[in-house]
Amino acid sequence: MSTTITRVRAAYDRVEAVDRPEIWIDLRPREEVEREAAAIDERLAQGEQLPLAGRLFAAKGNIDVAGLPTTAGCPSYAYHPEADAPVVAALRAAGALVLGTTNLDQFATGLVGTRSPYGAVRNAHDPSRISGGSSSGSAVAVALGIVDFALGTDTAGSGRVPAAFNGIVGLKPTRGLVPTTGVVPACASIDCVTVFARTLPEAEQALAHMTTGTAPSLPGRRPGPWRIAVPPREQLGELDEGWAQAYEEAVAQLSTAGDVIRELDLTPFTEAAAMLYEGAFVAERYTAVGAFIDKATEANDDSLDPTVAAIITRARDLPAHQLYADMDRLAALRNRALTELSDADALLLPTAPGHPTLAEVAADPLGANARLGRFTNSTNLFDLAAVAAPAGEVNGLPFGVMLIGPAHTDERLARIATLLQPETRLAVVGAHLTGQPLNPQLLSLGARYDRTTTTAPVYRLHALRTDPPKPGLVHVGEGGAQIETEIWRLPAEGLGRLLTALPRPMTLGSVDLADGSRLPGFLCEPAALEDAEDITRYGSWRSYRSKE
Amino acid sequence: MSTTITRVRAAYDRVEAVDRPEIWIDLRPREEVEREAAAIDERLAQGEQLPLAGRLFAAKGNIDVAGLPTTAGCPSYAYHPEADAPVVAALRAAGALVLGTTNLDQFATGLVGTRSPYGAVRNAHDPSRISGGSSSGSAVAVALGIVDFALGTDTAGSGRVPAAFNGIVGLKPTRGLVPTTGVVPACASIDCVTVFARTLPEAEQALAHMTTGTAPSLPGRRPGPWRIAVPPREQLGELDEGWAQAYEEAVAQLSTAGDVIRELDLTPFTEAAAMLYEGAFVAERYTAVGAFIDKATEANDDSLDPTVAAIITRARDLPAHQLYADMDRLAALRNRALTELSDADALLLPTAPGHPTLAEVAADPLGANARLGRFTNSTNLFDLAAVAAPAGEVNGLPFGVMLIGPAHTDERLARIATLLQPETRLAVVGAHLTGQPLNPQLLSLGARYDRTTTTAPVYRLHALRTDPPKPGLVHVGEGGAQIETEIWRLPAEGLGRLLTALPRPMTLGSVDLADGSRLPGFLCEPAALEDAEDITRYGSWRSYRSKE
Repeated sequence: MSTTITRVRAAYDRVEAVDRPEIWIDLRPREEVEREAAAIDERLAQGEQLPLAGRLFAAKGNIDVAGLPTTAGCPSYAYHPEADAPVVAALRAAGALVLGTTNLDQFATGLVGTRSPYGAVRNAHDPSRISGGSSSGSAVAVALGIVDFALGTDTAGSGRVPAAFNGIVGLKPTRGLVPTTGVVPACASIDCVTVFARTLPEAEQALAHMTTGTAPSLPGRRPGPWRIAVPPREQLGELDEGWAQAYEEAVAQLSTAGDVIRELDLTPFTEAAAMLYEGAFVAERYTAVGAFIDKATEANDDSLDPTVAAIITRARDLPAHQLYADMDRLAALRNRALTELSDADALLLPTAPGHPTLAEVAADPLGANARLGRFTNSTNLFDLAAVAAPAGEVNGLPFGVMLIGPAHTDERLARIATLLQPETRLAVVGAHLTGQPLNPQLLSLGARYDRTTTTAPVYRLHALRTDPPKPGLVHVGEGGAQIETEIWRLPAEGLGRLLTALPRPMTLGSVDLADGSRLPGFLCEPAALEDAEDITRYGSWRSYRSKE
Repeated sequence: MSTTITRVRAAYDRVEAVDRPEIWIDLRPREEVEREAAAIDERLAQGEQLPLAGRLFAAKGNIDVAGLPTTAGCPSYAYHPEADAPVVAALRAAGALVLGTTNLDQFATGLVGTRSPYGAVRNAHDPSRISGGSSSGSAVAVALGIVDFALGTDTAGSGRVPAAFNGIVGLKPTRGLVPTTGVVPACASIDCVTVFARTLPEAEQALAHMTTGTAPSLPGRRPGPWRIAVPPREQLGELDEGWAQAYEEAVAQLSTAGDVIRELDLTPFTEAAAMLYEGAFVAERYTAVGAFIDKATEANDDSLDPTVAAIITRARDLPAHQLYADMDRLAALRNRALTELSDADALLLPTAPGHPTLAEVAADPLGANARLGRFTNSTNLFDLAAVAAPAGEVNGLPFGVMLIGPAHTDERLARIATLLQPETRLAVVGAHLTGQPLNPQLLSLGARYDRTTTTAPVYRLHALRTDPPKPGLVHVGEGGAQIETEIWRLPAEGLGRLLTALPRPMTLGSVDLADGSRLPGFLCEPAALEDAEDITRYGSWRSYRSKE
């Protein structure tokens, strides 16, 4: 059975298993996608190169997918596109398969994920909380492991807030980098197509096929240390319980990684953020779909989300002279913001100030939504790039941060974001120690040296007959000794690669340290010890090797 | 008596002589400017370099001049600026002297020059016709020889239409090239400060001191031939009597100069032009001064021009969603326009479709004005550069054309415009002939070879004892012969320089040609003939020189 078809079947099984029907507006028939998968597999078998072969994705319901209606979350608005949006077409041409269109805040107007006649989208980790929006279905489909990546759009933060609430990555590319042809406009002049994935490399790989032309690349040399701008604590305003500490831990993580932290005045960012819905810019939403909404309102069309319809209808009366004044004010704020950013590589912020429940949003639809955009709303108004990435958990729910930089710093922001990804500390006792033959493997996986210590006195060390020579660390309880150990910090992604490449008889297991803590570390299969010399008396692999 | 003071006194005498009080809103006291002139002369005497020393200029009444009120053509709006606008300050720092502020269509809203409580500005050449506006006083002050150059502003065409109607040059620089700080905004996002002068070099010299940073320069090599885009005749619409022919002569002049003429679709330009006042863009004028006008209207303030006040008041109710739609439509039209322009160096157009009388404008203030902007209105909306230049006369009144090109082609447009300046054909019989020692002088003055012919059979040719050797052409009536003659086309400006540099005993006079026509040509003073050999028998200077 072919690989791509297997993946497609697993995905449809997963759709059933998670039982979140509100994710989808139109899920394609399983058989149709399986036929496409078979065709891909056939092409691969014939030697064709398809860089995204077998990757499965979903498209937000405001993006054209040939064969499905484009609804923008409003059944009566639906039209039948003649072709895929160019961004969808490019991904399919590279071998990716689209499973369907996902739910969204109607007309991409909202950050909550509840403003849809197709149902409120529940959070992937806690169904009593919102998914975030407007790209709600796409984010949850990724977070629940149905698809590898998904397309969203982002005007006020729709490609980032749902990433934060569902514990995934959201890339909000520089305006214009990804074509918006075939996308129902929210605010046409600032809309961006975005991508969600569970890991940065997955999201970046998809993005590479979505852009027009070539984005500038970082030089090949080792980048950094980065200069990270952070606002003074009081400018962050009120955050959910535990979020300030989680944010400070993210800052500390970059600082530990050697980056330089400097303070920035967040005022121009938050003032511009408030203008997105309070100022005249919202009139652009009326330009896009106002005539439709007026007509639907008159016809008592129950396809309309009442909150969205009210927002857009009110925008009809905003005067053009106010828009000019707001544009002037925005330009001044943007100058201040870019000046604040000018001696930093990125601004680090919480993606949102908090994560409300479905009930809280139902009780105050406008207020709850407005609060969510505090950090995201100004990004596209200022023509900046952003990457939203997970940064640990608070009370068992995902916490996310956002890196923001000038236009066309997309790749730089992604590189900085990798420093924020979860790390594993690893106990190393043998060939991976500093100066030993396999140490370069750790470095190439992005690992950083933390400290030197010893195991608890419960281990014996053996010299295995491997090539290169490696030690076998064996937990013995009584009769053990303390063995010299280096602790290394390894990105989560690096740990996976290490494990995948780990040769027999080596294993990874839990190692007790002298201070009573326990970390993952190198052990070995029992069979390897049969003809191995006990070298515990040396106290360390390094001593044994040098005295041997 | 010093040079600068002399120039200032002559200017104030000229102000009296022309008796056009409506040119000025505030003319500075003569004594004050004379004191500044004396100071300039003193600095020059001490060896200081002042590139614009003694140049006299006027500033449109919406531009800050320290010590004078800034009125924008509305007495009750007036404020007293603390400093010169940067563009005024830069010109004064280079040694230029400002005589005062000039009349304008109120709030720079109009192309007629009649919308001002300070009086309608009459045309420099025909006081029954409009000056054009909104930079009316500045253009007429230049055309009547009061000042060397003058500052205008241009949103819809205010720096070009009055240039055309008064027979002078108007440079409309690329948006942003000249700072608009200290200028009362009309449509702040597209306003430009412009310069008027009687000749292109004078205007360019002033502009060089007005710009921020350095504009890109043409390469030093001989430029051209240029590719000139012109619309099909029917797209020009209705023109005043004789104007189509005058325009075609300008096209022919460039074609004769060796330039390539190609056809362009003018539709996107004229469609965008209609949007400037019919669309939502006019709301930017309300943003600038709407609150003032609302208050003044309520107070029955007779400072307001009723036409201007009505235009701006109506703009209050334009919706922001229409502005977004208009911006989208404009962007699409601009793409089409730039595509049309993409294989041409400049678009050549009449500056305006006709030149109305004061009475015609009074009878239909809005209609007459709208017609005037047909060719100019789209330039700043499209972010293009333009040069307006005289191109002959129609029925004894100036006719003007405009060269339009992409942003930052300012210098290129000026170079092309020099080819449109009045030319003099010159009959050459001696040292300036092709291949003869002084021919390079003609080339350096911008002259171009036209044809070879002979004089009428009424001349005798003498070899003068000059160095280098030159012939003396003498009209004798009977007993004369036909002498070989080259006809060269010389820019008007080049002729002046030629005459200024002409050494004794040479003169320029009228020469009868074989075809019965008469052209200016080289003759000589009688005294030079006393010891000169008669070489008429050779038939040409070239034959004499080669056989000698």
